[in-house]
Amino acid sequence: MTIINILINGANGKMGRTAVAAIDAEKDLRLVGCTTRGDDLCATIQKSSADVVIDFTTPAAVFENTKIILNAGARPVVGTTGLTPEQIKTLSALSIEKKLGAIVAPNFSIGAILMMRFAKEASRYYKHADIIEYHHPQKKDKPSGTALKTAELMHDAISEVPIHSVRLPGVFANQQVIFGGPGETFTLQHNAIDRTTMMPGLFLCCRKVTHLDHLIYGMENLV
Amino acid sequence: MTIINILINGANGKMGRTAVAAIDAEKDLRLVGCTTRGDDLCATIQKSSADVVIDFTTPAAVFENTKIILNAGARPVVGTTGLTPEQIKTLSALSIEKKLGAIVAPNFSIGAILMMRFAKEASRYYKHADIIEYHHPQKKDKPSGTALKTAELMHDAISEVPIHSVRLPGVFANQQVIFGGPGETFTLQHNAIDRTTMMPGLFLCCRKVTHLDHLIYGMENLV
Amino acid sequence: MTIINILINGANGKMGRTAVAAIDAEKDLRLVGCTTRGDDLCATIQKSSADVVIDFTTPAAVFENTKIILNAGARPVVGTTGLTPEQIKTLSALSIEKKLGAIVAPNFSIGAILMMRFAKEASRYYKHADIIEYHHPQKKDKPSGTALKTAELMHDAISEVPIHSVRLPGVFANQQVIFGGPGETFTLQHNAIDRTTMMPGLFLCCRKVTHLDHLIYGMENLV
Amino acid sequence: MTIINILINGANGKMGRTAVAAIDAEKDLRLVGCTTRGDDLCATIQKSSADVVIDFTTPAAVFENTKIILNAGARPVVGTTGLTPEQIKTLSALSIEKKLGAIVAPNFSIGAILMMRFAKEASRYYKHADIIEYHHPQKKDKPSGTALKTAELMHDAISEVPIHSVRLPGVFANQQVIFGGPGETFTLQHNAIDRTTMMPGLFLCCRKVTHLDHLIYGMENLV
Repeated sequence: MTIINILINGANGKMGRTAVAAIDAEKDLRLVGCTTRGDDLCATIQKSSADVVIDFTTPAAVFENTKIILNAGARPVVGTTGLTPEQIKTLSALSIEKKLGAIVAPNFSIGAILMMRFAKEASRYYKHADIIEYHHPQKKDKPSGTALKTAELMHDAISEVPIHSVRLPGVFANQQVIFGGPGETFTLQHNAIDRTTMMPGLFLCCRKVTHLDHLIYGMENLV
Repeated sequence: MTIINILINGANGKMGRTAVAAIDAEKDLRLVGCTTRGDDLCATIQKSSADVVIDFTTPAAVFENTKIILNAGARPVVGTTGLTPEQIKTLSALSIEKKLGAIVAPNFSIGAILMMRFAKEASRYYKHADIIEYHHPQKKDKPSGTALKTAELMHDAISEVPIHSVRLPGVFANQQVIFGGPGETFTLQHNAIDRTTMMPGLFLCCRKVTHLDHLIYGMENLV
Repeated sequence: MTIINILINGANGKMGRTAVAAIDAEKDLRLVGCTTRGDDLCATIQKSSADVVIDFTTPAAVFENTKIILNAGARPVVGTTGLTPEQIKTLSALSIEKKLGAIVAPNFSIGAILMMRFAKEASRYYKHADIIEYHHPQKKDKPSGTALKTAELMHDAISEVPIHSVRLPGVFANQQVIFGGPGETFTLQHNAIDRTTMMPGLFLCCRKVTHLDHLIYGMENLV
Repeated sequence: MTIINILINGANGKMGRTAVAAIDAEKDLRLVGCTTRGDDLCATIQKSSADVVIDFTTPAAVFENTKIILNAGARPVVGTTGLTPEQIKTLSALSIEKKLGAIVAPNFSIGAILMMRFAKEASRYYKHADIIEYHHPQKKDKPSGTALKTAELMHDAISEVPIHSVRLPGVFANQQVIFGGPGETFTLQHNAIDRTTMMPGLFLCCRKVTHLDHLIYGMENLV
C-alpha cells in the first residue's frame, strides 16, 4: 500500500473540519498538515512533504492557493467554488507544465455524480421528467446548481424539465429526478444528511490525482 | 345483516363502471339497478325499491338528479361535482323535509380525508410545510383541488404553504404534505393508483346515509 | 415510415388485452390479427401477413407457439414466462436457421431494465445496499423475480443485499434499491401502477426484432 | 415572558451537547448550569436556582439523579432510558409528594409522536399495513423500539403489521408506516437527520413541566 501525504488548506472551515475528522479512517492517506488563513501555505507544503493538498478555502483565495500548491510541487484537490473558466485554463496549463495532476470539483458527492449520469442516460428512454430538489432554508440559490446541471444534461432528449424547489428545515440536501411513461415512473434520488457525503469522493480524488498529469474539472469526468 | 338496495345512476361512466364492478364484493349491499343517460330515474328507483342511489353523472344533471332521488323516497350518495352552495342549501332543506339522509362528497377516498385531517393537526406543531401533488398530465386544474383544500386547512397555523404541482404520465393521483422542523421532516402521503381508491369510502357512505336524516357535505364530516 | 404488421397471440388474457388497447396509438405498428386459445396460429399468421407475433399465452403453450411462429416466417416477441434454458437454446437455433429475429423477455418494462442496469453500475461505488419491493398481496412469489435478479447483478460488488418484501393492496409493482454511504443514500425506484408499463418496451421489441437475425433473451440485452 | 432556569445534567454526552448548543435560541429558557459525571448534582441545582433539570446521563445513574433533582426542589425532564416500571412508580410518588412536575420521555421527537398517534388513528380505516424503519448500522436493536411501539398501537385494529428493518450508512433514523387499501396507499413518514430533532420536544417539556404537579411518562401523553 502506497501512503499518500495529505495537507488540508482551510482546515477550520466546515468542510475542512469534516475532512480532518474523516481522514483518520483512510489507511492509505496520512494527514501531514493543516493550514488556516494567515499560514504560509508554500512553506508548509514543503516542510510537510505533502503529495496532495486539499483546498477548502474561499472564492477570493482559491486561485492563488492552487498556483502555490502546483508551484510547490504538490497536487491540488480543490473543493472551493468560484474559479472562473479563465482561471481554470491558466491552472490547467500550469498543471501540464509542472506534470502534476490537479482536480477541481464543485461537488465531491458520488451519489450526486451518479444521479446526474443516470439522469442523462434515462432521459433517452422517457419523454417526460420533473426534478424536485429539497434543501435547508439557508440555501441562497434557487433552483440549486445541481438541479440546473441535471436538467441541462437531460435537455438533449427531453425538451422541458420543470424544477421544483422545496426549502424546509430538517433537510440537508435531497434531489429527485422523476421520469414518467405509460403506467410507470422511474425515480433517481440522492439524499445527503450532512457534509460527510463529500468524503468518499474527496478521498477518491486524492488517490486518483497522484496518477494524473493534467487538471480535471468535475468529478464526473473522473469516476 | 341488513341488506341495503343500491341503484347506480351514471353506470357507464368511469366512476360508475368502477362502482358496478366493486359492489359485488360487499355482502350487505345489493345492486338493484343501473341507469344511464336517457333512462327514467324516478321510475327505476321505485321499480327497484332502491334504498340508496349513487350518482356519478354530470355537473349539468346532478342537481335535478338529486332532487328526483329524494322525491322518490331514496337516499342520494353523490360523487358528481358541480353543485353550487345555493343548490346544496336547497337539497339540504329537501333532505330534512323528506327525513331522508343525503351525502354529497367530491372525494370518497379515505386516504385523502385522513391526509387532510392529519395535515391540519400536524400544522399546529410545525412552522414550515410544503405540499407536492403529482397527477397525470390530462388533469386540467393546477394545483389540484385537494392540494388547495389541504393548504387552506393548514393556514391557521402555518402562514405560507407552497404547493408544487407535478404533471407526469405514469402517475394517477399522489399528494405529499411535508412538515420541516429542526433535524426532522414529517410527511403524509396519499398515493392512488386507480379509481378503486374511491370504493371503500363510497360504500361507507351508502351504509351511513341510511342512518342520517339530513344532508352531509364532505366525507370528512362523516368519518 | 415502414409499417410493421403485428399479430397478438393470447389476445384475451390480461396482457393481451392491454396490448390490443395500446397498439392503436403506435402509427408504425398495424394490428393485423388476434388469436386466442383454439385458433389455428399458423394459418392466421400466413393469412394476415404478420411480420411480428406477440405471444402472451401460457407456460404450457409458449414453446410450441414460438416454433410455429418462426416456421410460419414471422418474428416472435414473447412475453410469456416458462421457457426452459433448453427450450430457449432450441428456439435460438431455429431463429438462426430461419434467419428471423426473435425476442424472449420476461419483463418489457423499460423502468425495470434501467433500474437493474443502474443498480449494477452503482454497486461499484457503495459497500451497502438494501432492496425493498412492494407488490399486491395476490403475487405468489416472495421475493419477486426482479428483486432477486437485481440483487444478483449487484453481488460482484456488494456481498450481501437484504431484500424486504412488502405485500399490500393499493400497490401494483414497486421496487427501491437503496445504496448507503457516509452521509448519503442514493435510491433507484421503479413504480408501476398498471400493465401499460410494459407497452413501450413491448413495442420497442416489435420494432427491433425486424432488424435481428437471431434470438435475444432479456430486453436488457437489447436496449 | 417568564424565564425558566435550566440545568443540564450529562452535558458532555451526545444529547447533552446538542441541548447545550440549541438552548441559546430559546429566549424563555436560561441555561444556568451544566454538570457531568462526578459533579455534585444536588449542590449545583441549589447554587444555580434551577427550575428544571434535563437529565441525559446513563441507565445506571438516572434513577438516583431523578430522586436528587426532586429532593433538591427542581423538576426533572428525563431523556435517559433505562428506568424500570417500579422505579417510575417510586419517582411518581415522590413527584406528587414534592408537588413538583416531572417528565420522563424515551423520545422527545414531535414527528415520532405524531407518527405514532396518526398510525393508531389510521389503523381504524385500513385492514393492512407494513412498517419500514431505517437506521444507521450502529443501532443495536432490531426492530427499533419506536417501530415496535407503533405496531403495538395498531394491533387493536390490524392483526398483523410486518416490520422491515433497514440498516444502512447515510441514514440517521427514518420510519414509514404504509397503509394499503383498494387502489391506494397512505403513508406516514418521520425522517430525522440528526439529534436536533429532539430539541423542540425537549424544550416543550421544559415549559410544560413547570405547570405540572405529578410525573408524566411519554411525551405522547403531554402533547
